[in-house]
Amino acid sequence: MTRVRVDLNISLDGFATTADQTPDNPFGQDWGRLTTAYVGTRTFRERVLHDTSGAGTTGVDDEYAQRYFEAVGAEIMGAGMFGLHEHGDDPEWKGWWEDEPPFRVPVFILTHTPRPSIEMKGGTVFHFVEASPEEALARAVAVADGGDVRIGGGPSTVREFLRAGLVDDLHVAITPILLGQGIRLWDDLRGLEAGYDVTTEAAPSGITHITFRRESRG
Amino acid sequence: MTRVRVDLNISLDGFATTADQTPDNPFGQDWGRLTTAYVGTRTFRERVLHDTSGAGTTGVDDEYAQRYFEAVGAEIMGAGMFGLHEHGDDPEWKGWWEDEPPFRVPVFILTHTPRPSIEMKGGTVFHFVEASPEEALARAVAVADGGDVRIGGGPSTVREFLRAGLVDDLHVAITPILLGQGIRLWDDLRGLEAGYDVTTEAAPSGITHITFRRESRG
Repeated sequence: MTRVRVDLNISLDGFATTADQTPDNPFGQDWGRLTTAYVGTRTFRERVLHDTSGAGTTGVDDEYAQRYFEAVGAEIMGAGMFGLHEHGDDPEWKGWWEDEPPFRVPVFILTHTPRPSIEMKGGTVFHFVEASPEEALARAVAVADGGDVRIGGGPSTVREFLRAGLVDDLHVAITPILLGQGIRLWDDLRGLEAGYDVTTEAAPSGITHITFRRESRG
Repeated sequence: MTRVRVDLNISLDGFATTADQTPDNPFGQDWGRLTTAYVGTRTFRERVLHDTSGAGTTGVDDEYAQRYFEAVGAEIMGAGMFGLHEHGDDPEWKGWWEDEPPFRVPVFILTHTPRPSIEMKGGTVFHFVEASPEEALARAVAVADGGDVRIGGGPSTVREFLRAGLVDDLHVAITPILLGQGIRLWDDLRGLEAGYDVTTEAAPSGITHITFRRESRG
């Protein structure tokens, strides 16, 4: 049964994006601080950085990182996460992940200006679709080959799917820093916990892993 | 050495107050949901409800509840936490805690309309002062007899003390529910974690206890 999943890193004050980017530091210092534990895992190093040396942490944070990549058959993301807000004018733009992105499945990018699909190395194919959350999800499920569908981000896209009641599994990794600015994941989600089992696990890194999980609606 | 301490219950989306009060339910349902784990501890039952039967939980949440009451020599709170916003016109108003409040120390209530002090049973004395955070803290330290000073709340008052750099120990108990409305603890506190050791502990109840602690500044 296909499950719809979300995993995000957020700050203690609920921000899932950072706002301190500069021309010299295009991701900003805050992004590094927000994702330190995840980026330090062995799974991230292998899967995203193609580092097969075995370096990286293997504790609680790595267990969540492994689950992040398990059994995903298709991905959906917003235009912003793919970089279309900055690079939409460039017809050659292929996202932030170089030639071999870590997804290895069909990825549906929600945009009001669709463009031709792009096939990348390693199994990732980017499709650009103008669609509601429900429509995009139906298309993703159709090609997921029985695997799960992940809503990758950013937080505004995730919130649309949460508000539409489409998400079965939500995992947030909370880093105990206060960013004070950016896009909040939790806005306008009063009562989201109803209908979910919520579990909490603290990692030695200081990260709090909170999981909302519900029975699949079939 | 006197330490300045804060303990608050907040929701996952950062709200430290609730907004669903009705005439029939003056605390609202959300307040109960936000404080279930704390109110269920043996320490709360003994100290606040005067229940000496030994009922209540004795795990992680109770350890934090015990620490809440340990070694406090004076307390500071905002006018709202004392109830002056609703009951300020009543010269006989003595707060929400009946005849024998759980503080048992001098309590300074910050208000623009001071009134005479009130001595309660059990050692609590309410003083009403118009003072800056620094001035109120100096007065509290002077009478704390070497004990700590707690900034009791509400969240706006706590944030004033945090922003002024006056707090040595901040403990928040995060309940995994989304309230979507109220007063946020974390607003305008970007970078607060600098200068603190931050630790995280997940309780079996689902509460996440996060502690910011720094060396006393003397």
